Amino acid sequence: MDFRIIKSPSQSTKDILKRRMGANCNTDVDSIDAIGLVQGKLIDMIYAADIAEKTVGVTVEDIRGTCPQHMMLIGIFGDTSSVESALSQIKLKMKEVK
Amino acid sequence: MDFRIIKSPSQSTKDILKRRMGANCNTDVDSIDAIGLVQGKLIDMIYAADIAEKTVGVTVEDIRGTCPQHMMLIGIFGDTSSVESALSQIKLKMKEVK
Amino acid sequence: MDFRIIKSPSQSTKDILKRRMGANCNTDVDSIDAIGLVQGKLIDMIYAADIAEKTVGVTVEDIRGTCPQHMMLIGIFGDTSSVESALSQIKLKMKEVK
Amino acid sequence: MDFRIIKSPSQSTKDILKRRMGANCNTDVDSIDAIGLVQGKLIDMIYAADIAEKTVGVTVEDIRGTCPQHMMLIGIFGDTSSVESALSQIKLKMKEVK
Amino acid sequence: MDFRIIKSPSQSTKDILKRRMGANCNTDVDSIDAIGLVQGKLIDMIYAADIAEKTVGVTVEDIRGTCPQHMMLIGIFGDTSSVESALSQIKLKMKEVK
Amino acid sequence: MDFRIIKSPSQSTKDILKRRMGANCNTDVDSIDAIGLVQGKLIDMIYAADIAEKTVGVTVEDIRGTCPQHMMLIGIFGDTSSVESALSQIKLKMKEVK
Repeated sequence: MDFRIIKSPSQSTKDILKRRMGANCNTDVDSIDAIGLVQGKLIDMIYAADIAEKTVGVTVEDIRGTCPQHMMLIGIFGDTSSVESALSQIKLKMKEVK
Repeated sequence: MDFRIIKSPSQSTKDILKRRMGANCNTDVDSIDAIGLVQGKLIDMIYAADIAEKTVGVTVEDIRGTCPQHMMLIGIFGDTSSVESALSQIKLKMKEVK
Repeated sequence: MDFRIIKSPSQSTKDILKRRMGANCNTDVDSIDAIGLVQGKLIDMIYAADIAEKTVGVTVEDIRGTCPQHMMLIGIFGDTSSVESALSQIKLKMKEVK
Repeated sequence: MDFRIIKSPSQSTKDILKRRMGANCNTDVDSIDAIGLVQGKLIDMIYAADIAEKTVGVTVEDIRGTCPQHMMLIGIFGDTSSVESALSQIKLKMKEVK
Repeated sequence: MDFRIIKSPSQSTKDILKRRMGANCNTDVDSIDAIGLVQGKLIDMIYAADIAEKTVGVTVEDIRGTCPQHMMLIGIFGDTSSVESALSQIKLKMKEVK
Repeated sequence: MDFRIIKSPSQSTKDILKRRMGANCNTDVDSIDAIGLVQGKLIDMIYAADIAEKTVGVTVEDIRGTCPQHMMLIGIFGDTSSVESALSQIKLKMKEVK
């Protein structure tokens, strides 16, 4: 399971993400401060999306490769401290279930 | 073979699952209490779906990545104790066949 | 190469299989007693399908993941003892060619 | 690289192969005696197809999984001794280039 | 994570890249001096694209295989020294997060 | 990274290649003497295509599996000595960058 955080993402990074998130996306990517990225097995990412959703101040989106298979990447969008706290929650809860 | 259980799933988690389950799905995802997730080889997941179906109080759905190949993820939906008992049954029976 | 046998499959298991077998399938899945599943490399599964077909009382179908690649899953349908005998034949003949 | 030979293939085996060979196939699969199967990396299979084509009495076809990627399976069709001699040629020539 | 730099790319190389970059590409590939290529996990490539975009004098494009899955290749276009400096930045920042 | 050279390719080999090269291919495959095949990671194959293009007397084409992902196969077409010299150039230059 991999974690990355991008602060003040460039316009081109936002464009790559928007092209991969599809039409029915609830996040206004252009106005956000930070992006948390989490990549892992499909089963873990559904679990992680649920944890992130239950923290305050972030939205969660499914970012697809053209053919993501059993791997999945989720984006967590919000201000920097909310995104950091969502990532910490995921790391903590994943440690408990293993 | 991986197992996860999500209690009181967030709306966004339900949305990710619904988008991946396709149209002919028999489960009313919005009204359920808990979701059991099992990921593994196609052959084992068909076997596990049969075991889960034969326990009381759950429904089983095929959750697809865009291109799931020889891996497959199934969702087991119901109240928390029924989902937990379906997951236990799967773990027990898979141990017997190995 | 993996082998599983499902006796008295549940309706939901039959539905998962039927959705993955496509339209031009010769087996009446709803009336069968047992399902044998064999998963392996494409080349071995074509070989195994031929062995199973030559045993009495079973039909063989190609069960596809959305994108099965070089892996393939076949289903062997019939009464329990015929399916068991087809699986034994495959194990025996595969041992000879290795 | 894997090799298999199927003598007097069953009708069902021929049907699986025909469905995977596509429309512009030059071989009359129904009238042949034996099928040689070779599975390996795309680059090796193009090389092997050329060797098989240059032996007498066989035709060569590209058998695709739904999504064969960098792996490829070729079928070599003809009478048993021609197919066996084509497979021997491939094994011999592949040993030379390694 | 792999890095390559192509100086004065041939026309045929530019054509392969243009076919794989799709229609909504902002770079005039025909007039550039050098191409930096970075291949890695989807999550790292989004991160790397953001780093490259923040260096001066380059544009970044997503280069897809037909089915790139959880791997992704990005192209960094510009004059040779700008491309080299973008690649150095990526190597430096990736070392920090590991 | 794998290399193969096919001298005086059979008609059937040319047909397999032509079906996989798509419509906008610049090479007259039917009139060539030899085919060089190189298979490897997408990033290395773009690099190798550029090296081959800069040697005299060959053309380079992208040969796709149905779903080639992060792997790619290129074909180098021309007379035998030009193809051999393009393959040597690729081997030499790839050794330098590693």
